[in-house]
Amino acid sequence: MNEKMKNLKALLAEVADLRAASAVLGWDQLVNMPEGGAEDRGEQIATLEGLIHIKSTSDEMGKLIEGLELDIKDLDQDSDDARLWRVCKRDFDKATKVTPEHVTEFARVSTVAQSVWEKAKPKSDFKSFQPYLEKLVELRRQYADFFKPWDHVYDPLLDDFEPGMKTVEVQEIFNQLRPKQVELIKSITAKPQVDKSFLSLDYPEKDQLAFGEMVITQFGYDWKHGRQDKSAHPFTTGFGLNDVRITTRFNTNYLPTALFGTMHECGHALFELGIDKKFNRTPLGGGASMAVHESQSRMWENLIGRSRPFWNQYYPKLKEMFPSQLGNVDLDTFYKGINAVEPSLIRVEADEATYNLHIMLRLEMEIALMEGSLAVKDAPEVWNEKINEYLGITPPNYEMGILQDVHWSFGGFGYFPTYALGNLVSAQIWETMAKDINDMDLQVEKGKFEGILGWLRENLHKYGAKYEPQELVEKVTGSKITPEPYIHYLENKYKEIYGL
Amino acid sequence: MNEKMKNLKALLAEVADLRAASAVLGWDQLVNMPEGGAEDRGEQIATLEGLIHIKSTSDEMGKLIEGLELDIKDLDQDSDDARLWRVCKRDFDKATKVTPEHVTEFARVSTVAQSVWEKAKPKSDFKSFQPYLEKLVELRRQYADFFKPWDHVYDPLLDDFEPGMKTVEVQEIFNQLRPKQVELIKSITAKPQVDKSFLSLDYPEKDQLAFGEMVITQFGYDWKHGRQDKSAHPFTTGFGLNDVRITTRFNTNYLPTALFGTMHECGHALFELGIDKKFNRTPLGGGASMAVHESQSRMWENLIGRSRPFWNQYYPKLKEMFPSQLGNVDLDTFYKGINAVEPSLIRVEADEATYNLHIMLRLEMEIALMEGSLAVKDAPEVWNEKINEYLGITPPNYEMGILQDVHWSFGGFGYFPTYALGNLVSAQIWETMAKDINDMDLQVEKGKFEGILGWLRENLHKYGAKYEPQELVEKVTGSKITPEPYIHYLENKYKEIYGL
Repeated sequence: MNEKMKNLKALLAEVADLRAASAVLGWDQLVNMPEGGAEDRGEQIATLEGLIHIKSTSDEMGKLIEGLELDIKDLDQDSDDARLWRVCKRDFDKATKVTPEHVTEFARVSTVAQSVWEKAKPKSDFKSFQPYLEKLVELRRQYADFFKPWDHVYDPLLDDFEPGMKTVEVQEIFNQLRPKQVELIKSITAKPQVDKSFLSLDYPEKDQLAFGEMVITQFGYDWKHGRQDKSAHPFTTGFGLNDVRITTRFNTNYLPTALFGTMHECGHALFELGIDKKFNRTPLGGGASMAVHESQSRMWENLIGRSRPFWNQYYPKLKEMFPSQLGNVDLDTFYKGINAVEPSLIRVEADEATYNLHIMLRLEMEIALMEGSLAVKDAPEVWNEKINEYLGITPPNYEMGILQDVHWSFGGFGYFPTYALGNLVSAQIWETMAKDINDMDLQVEKGKFEGILGWLRENLHKYGAKYEPQELVEKVTGSKITPEPYIHYLENKYKEIYGL
Repeated sequence: MNEKMKNLKALLAEVADLRAASAVLGWDQLVNMPEGGAEDRGEQIATLEGLIHIKSTSDEMGKLIEGLELDIKDLDQDSDDARLWRVCKRDFDKATKVTPEHVTEFARVSTVAQSVWEKAKPKSDFKSFQPYLEKLVELRRQYADFFKPWDHVYDPLLDDFEPGMKTVEVQEIFNQLRPKQVELIKSITAKPQVDKSFLSLDYPEKDQLAFGEMVITQFGYDWKHGRQDKSAHPFTTGFGLNDVRITTRFNTNYLPTALFGTMHECGHALFELGIDKKFNRTPLGGGASMAVHESQSRMWENLIGRSRPFWNQYYPKLKEMFPSQLGNVDLDTFYKGINAVEPSLIRVEADEATYNLHIMLRLEMEIALMEGSLAVKDAPEVWNEKINEYLGITPPNYEMGILQDVHWSFGGFGYFPTYALGNLVSAQIWETMAKDINDMDLQVEKGKFEGILGWLRENLHKYGAKYEPQELVEKVTGSKITPEPYIHYLENKYKEIYGL
């Protein structure tokens, strides 16, 4: 057993190193690379990803996993080794069920589709993108078929992002959530809008940077194990569990972009940095799922970063840094401004109250496309109808409608629901944590985050990918993913802000 | 043939991609990596290097090379494919002659030896380093023995840096050079020293950076295919032929460090960026040898960067940037100051007149150590005697004597001579180029470098590693590496500066 497990771990470590190398190349590409390096960099990453795929699906890997099956049965099924083996087996089975021809074909089509989408979006030209989206839907259906029998054609796609989770579970959660959020938005939009014009003044980049760094340093981001750089789109990436980096972007005419973006990415990074180091260079050395990961970014961005206790502590500091911009804006006005609700067309700019509805729209359409009940050619109009139904607004063009997101252009069906699930999980964990930490709001108000970060590490982060997301959420909170805590959170927050 | 060659090139491209990936990880480690990432980064690079070694020495590689042997005979022996095949065969034969056990043992010992040296150097503690150096000498002898029969035990080591070159060739060159340089230094030190105190004033980093960037931009460094960052020790690295980066370091109390360091690394980068792109992702897509590479860094640093024509153009600009430091220093004084000759103990700080003597000392000692005519335990004293003989000074301790360089700590015997050979080649090529470009000095004086860079690209850079260094130098200049042009260069330069 020991020897066999050691061999498996050695191969896993090699794959993990190659993944880390590919991630370093990806980070460099988005942060540092001179433009002339793009083509070669594509080849280099493709070579690494090819090797990762070959090694992950190799006979050697298969035999190592199979050879341990009986030994694992003798272990405590909750032990690290038993769990590691299960994750390896699951990933290997999934990867080897798909034919290499399909993998190649999908890579080819999605690469072309992405570049077609990039050109089509600014021109609102859905027609040119349509045949590629049709092909991608077809390929994703074929992909799902490799995993038959399934309960729902969408299950295998969702499973890639939320291991073990079923489409019906997500639908049930969203069915509870939707009417509550729609109702909430209606009552908010009936009230007078709050002022947020002061967020759109001139905010110099270097001061924004300094403030953001100060905040995430106090959150507990360890600069000996990370760094922050600029990139066109913010992201978090890790090269093993000891070097987890974030990026941000600055809009000098809109304060929230970098401010909340930095907190968001820091939340992702704190999760990765909190995973038990014993899982380093194994498949357990990462987040349990996209939703669990997003719960951590959203928690630091929203439940902490957009909360009143937080700004009780930090608003005086922010005002000091931007006296001419915020000198006449009091704390209450600022707090309401950063939490203003306004139904809008663009998902990535949506506020907390409306965000999930953007996701539900996408999920419903993805399911319909996969089921075949919606034809790609009809999708743009359905999009416009749905957004009008949920938010009362209609896109003036496809750029601000169906073509706005990159996800579909690379066939990333199954990804969107994780954003909304992450919001729900953030509130669910927050509610549990509040029971353990009596003076949690007071700690935030004092700018003390050790208690919160310590609790998250001990109860959530340290497990990495040892558990499936629903298992983990249940382990932490006592129940599977449920929308109530998030609904309560939103209702309480906006009741106060809008006087509902 | 075509199909077989295609397969070989595909495998070579894969190896080249892995090398590029390893280089990106290495660059990141020295430029960006937070300190906490060091251990994992070591594993990641080791995994990549392991894969590179496995693929480079694989049966698959051997069979592809062997399978082409007859086809290659039918080709023009100077064609790209024939040359590529020869280089592949040479590298494969060299790599497979050494046992994997030896490779592992050498990697193990040199890693430990390097960390022992790091601790021993600041304490001038040669005794603690001695057993490791003894082991490394022994291992390098064993390494040489894999390549028997040889003319000289040092040949296989030299060959790793200067393919095809023999120890006796280097000795003959150095035997001609040594008396001339010793004589030159004697006549210079008999003259009054020139003033260079103004180089050691306070020079703000940001202005040094701006001036250096301006200079290398005019040299022709293409920022779309490169960038410059800071690192503890300056270096050049490339990830394919379209992304070649340099680093520099600043000493705010000594202007020459960054100024000439930047020009030096730029010279390396211009070479890599000038290699014909058809050699990208093949073993021909690099410099012909260390000496040829060094000839290019030295040319831009010294033959251009420390020349009077260059400063006729650039000194007014430098003075404008540093008015308080250089306001009272005229061009002649500045020019003499940056070319001051002063026998000193530290190689990396040596001027052009004394530098090669540092190298000769090391080469003589390396050869004696390898031959066994010098015991490691006696090496420190021999070092001190030799430096006294050549430069008339004696190190006060081993830190400034035998322990000063990193090279021996990783067993890098064979490396040092390439520095001096690079100096010689730089002057040899310069002399040839001057025959083709009549107004070369005038072009430098006008800050116009397109003619020079264009000539170097057309006559040298584009060939990459297609030819062995002696072949290439002969192709460019009409003769193999010879010391005369460098001697003339030094004599002319210092005659004027010191009024010899």
